[in-house]
Amino acid sequence: MAELLLQRWVVDNEDRIVNELLELLRIPSVSADPARERDVRRSAEAFAELFRDAGLEHVRLIEPGQGAGLPAVYGDWLHAGEDLPTVLVYGHHDVQPVDPLEEWTSAPFEPVLVDGECRARGAIDDKGQVLYQVEAVRGLLAERGSLPVNIKFLVEGEEEIGSVHFERLLLDWEQYLACDVVVVSDTGMISAEVPSSTVSMRGLIAFDVALRSAAVDLHSGAFGGTVPNAARLAAEMVAELHDADHRVTVPGFYDRVVEVSEAVRASLAAQPFDEAAFRAQAGGVAFLEGETGFSALERIGVRPTAEVVGIHGGYDGPGIKTIVPATAGFKVAFRLVPDQRPEEIEASFRTWVHNRVPEGIEEIVTGEAGVCPAVTDIDHPAMVALAETIEAVWGRRPLWTREGGSGPEEALGRILISPVLFLGVGLPEDRIHAPNERMVMAQFWKGLVAAAELLVRLGELRFPKRDDELPWMKRLREEAKAREEAEARSKEVLPWTI
Amino acid sequence: MAELLLQRWVVDNEDRIVNELLELLRIPSVSADPARERDVRRSAEAFAELFRDAGLEHVRLIEPGQGAGLPAVYGDWLHAGEDLPTVLVYGHHDVQPVDPLEEWTSAPFEPVLVDGECRARGAIDDKGQVLYQVEAVRGLLAERGSLPVNIKFLVEGEEEIGSVHFERLLLDWEQYLACDVVVVSDTGMISAEVPSSTVSMRGLIAFDVALRSAAVDLHSGAFGGTVPNAARLAAEMVAELHDADHRVTVPGFYDRVVEVSEAVRASLAAQPFDEAAFRAQAGGVAFLEGETGFSALERIGVRPTAEVVGIHGGYDGPGIKTIVPATAGFKVAFRLVPDQRPEEIEASFRTWVHNRVPEGIEEIVTGEAGVCPAVTDIDHPAMVALAETIEAVWGRRPLWTREGGSGPEEALGRILISPVLFLGVGLPEDRIHAPNERMVMAQFWKGLVAAAELLVRLGELRFPKRDDELPWMKRLREEAKAREEAEARSKEVLPWTI
Repeated sequence: MAELLLQRWVVDNEDRIVNELLELLRIPSVSADPARERDVRRSAEAFAELFRDAGLEHVRLIEPGQGAGLPAVYGDWLHAGEDLPTVLVYGHHDVQPVDPLEEWTSAPFEPVLVDGECRARGAIDDKGQVLYQVEAVRGLLAERGSLPVNIKFLVEGEEEIGSVHFERLLLDWEQYLACDVVVVSDTGMISAEVPSSTVSMRGLIAFDVALRSAAVDLHSGAFGGTVPNAARLAAEMVAELHDADHRVTVPGFYDRVVEVSEAVRASLAAQPFDEAAFRAQAGGVAFLEGETGFSALERIGVRPTAEVVGIHGGYDGPGIKTIVPATAGFKVAFRLVPDQRPEEIEASFRTWVHNRVPEGIEEIVTGEAGVCPAVTDIDHPAMVALAETIEAVWGRRPLWTREGGSGPEEALGRILISPVLFLGVGLPEDRIHAPNERMVMAQFWKGLVAAAELLVRLGELRFPKRDDELPWMKRLREEAKAREEAEARSKEVLPWTI
Repeated sequence: MAELLLQRWVVDNEDRIVNELLELLRIPSVSADPARERDVRRSAEAFAELFRDAGLEHVRLIEPGQGAGLPAVYGDWLHAGEDLPTVLVYGHHDVQPVDPLEEWTSAPFEPVLVDGECRARGAIDDKGQVLYQVEAVRGLLAERGSLPVNIKFLVEGEEEIGSVHFERLLLDWEQYLACDVVVVSDTGMISAEVPSSTVSMRGLIAFDVALRSAAVDLHSGAFGGTVPNAARLAAEMVAELHDADHRVTVPGFYDRVVEVSEAVRASLAAQPFDEAAFRAQAGGVAFLEGETGFSALERIGVRPTAEVVGIHGGYDGPGIKTIVPATAGFKVAFRLVPDQRPEEIEASFRTWVHNRVPEGIEEIVTGEAGVCPAVTDIDHPAMVALAETIEAVWGRRPLWTREGGSGPEEALGRILISPVLFLGVGLPEDRIHAPNERMVMAQFWKGLVAAAELLVRLGELRFPKRDDELPWMKRLREEAKAREEAEARSKEVLPWTI
């Protein structure tokens, strides 16, 4: 294989880049925790400083949600010329919570390098993946004095809380963010030996359901057996969320689900899938289970799911406390596939909850996140460029996969009217969202080289001028605006928690 | 009504006694919390000091569980003469945990006197009820120079954690504790206007069930929908614990339950029961529900129940965390009625759990507590004395009730071979085990006067010498010893949590 553009530069810059990585990972930018707001801001500042240092311009923080949100970081380099493509690189600098803390083998925000990997919260999801994109820009500027494309970076601070203000941010800043291609740097591949890229991500809508059956916890001897029990009701509702075939029981849930075509089934079946290895990656689960009639890859990639992410009620201390719990609740995350709509699922789920809560028991259903499913056209020339890039760096053409996760990519593609490419180096064993999250450093360096290669290849493409598309853009923008306004109205009555 | 023995003395001693009450209630003797062990010991010392000050002798702490437990307090006064009865007064000085702390209107261990009641954790359950028994002794000694009976006090420090070492303590100290009548001072009555006493208490066995489906929490996008979910399994198990008729589904659970006789049904139906008032006492629940075919008083007094006292798994922080929880668990408390046996229910429940947990998912079932149901013979002369005492103090003959709660009284009666009388002044609205626990002071003063009256009446009875009963005693002791040894063996393999 020919030497790739930045391979030598990477060797010369390794120590500096690793130090940068460790510095970024030391900032506990947990967006779900209000007490960490200052740290999320510190993280944004650190990325802004990195941007400036790497040669990006117009670097600034973007405050979403009219100041109610957590800052995104913007920077650009626009000297390639008007005829050359403009690429927008998307990533995020916020991270997941760290609990259960006791299962970490090293502190989550004290990154360690061991066995060729970097362990810390945010290592792969997503600080590491943003860093190699920025370093690719620095490397290209150093080696060639200029970039093969115009480039914009948008690094969000609310991805791990469902990108709650992201669509509005894109609409507000759309003229600054206009681009021809989006490159998302927040995903993974099948393995280091079987490179792949994503053509779809599932949508997401999540809920917190809080129940109260009495003003106070009651003595289980004096009242047990004859009063309602909030914890039992919560358990019953969670148990009823799926039928015996693991299908979601919310009415209408499957109405808009696009049937899995034979072509898609065949492409998923062609992917390597070692069940034992998959189970090992999945925290060593003893067996797989899920919707009857579908394979594991189908269940993850093209079928919608409902997952209880938490259930809580009553006493959880040592020993026993003899009470009838007065309050309980659960959280559930729905993953959506085309053409499900979060707002429709929300309405159905609220009805489903209400029908199960006896009169006189308080229910509070809080919607969280709300992301549409997203699919990219694999025949687009930019996707061909991505495939060539991956083959050049990993030595093998990528397989096109369907991601089970969710992201704001749908809004990126829809509002910026651009194909969305997923260049991600994560591996299934990277424990994202779990204790001991890691990034394999060999994948990081390949990601850096690939990011530069992709820009060179995209620089050879020519995209139509945007004016040509104006009627379509107009319609899409109007639709997006109407949706956004409807959502803003619904937020006035529904306390969407961040 | 004639003036009762200690009525005048109570008025003279009111301020001192109230100060003693407040002092005792300031000690946070939460036995369920290992961090409070020192406070439970402080509480024992405070009661020992009270005993000495009131005129009791041989005051000492008893360390149960070979030093692994929390101390009980013993004291006696044995100068009435061999022919006169010996009364053992039982109570406890430990208290329930205080959570949810935010629902208390004043700090749980900073007692306040307001509206004729004393509010604090332990006010009625059980420090206040122990205090009036001790003060009755002090008052009788002050007024008469001696007591009408020999008396022993045993005030436990582990009642709120299921009296885990109590049976062993009774066996070890049986010759010191020998008595003719047990007076339990830890219960309540229907209302201040409708005095009552308990003839039965339910038994108790509780479990903590811990489940683990994977080594770590998993990303709900990458793995959701195709791997087992510990939280969902916990919810399903809780939901399956009862059938549609609210009957417990554990096989054999009802096998030994004595059928509710028409006489018992009639006596329960004769008790005043205002559903609206009961619901108000029960934290304002909107409706009652429970085993089909039984009234609320039957469900509480003579039917066994299973109550989920807690369920926990996955994320419980603000917003959402998109995981498949790897661990979850629940706690369930079974209330037992004659002739159910805790050890049989334990075996059945363990099988029930095991049959519901798919192979490959870890289960840890920890038994907690283990108390047999208890019934007292209402024709015993001591019960007649109790009825007369209550009528003298509250102006109305007591109704005989069946308590839904559980206590170590079964072991007291069985091992000490004595009738167990329940003199308790608690009211249904006293919020025991809940925030804002209280004691109505008028009930406290009546309890003090009644405790003295009861001793006088019991002093008029003559009990057979114990030697007469030796064969029966011997058999009971051998049975108790065998049970205790079997339990000790089972504890070697089962990690009984305290």
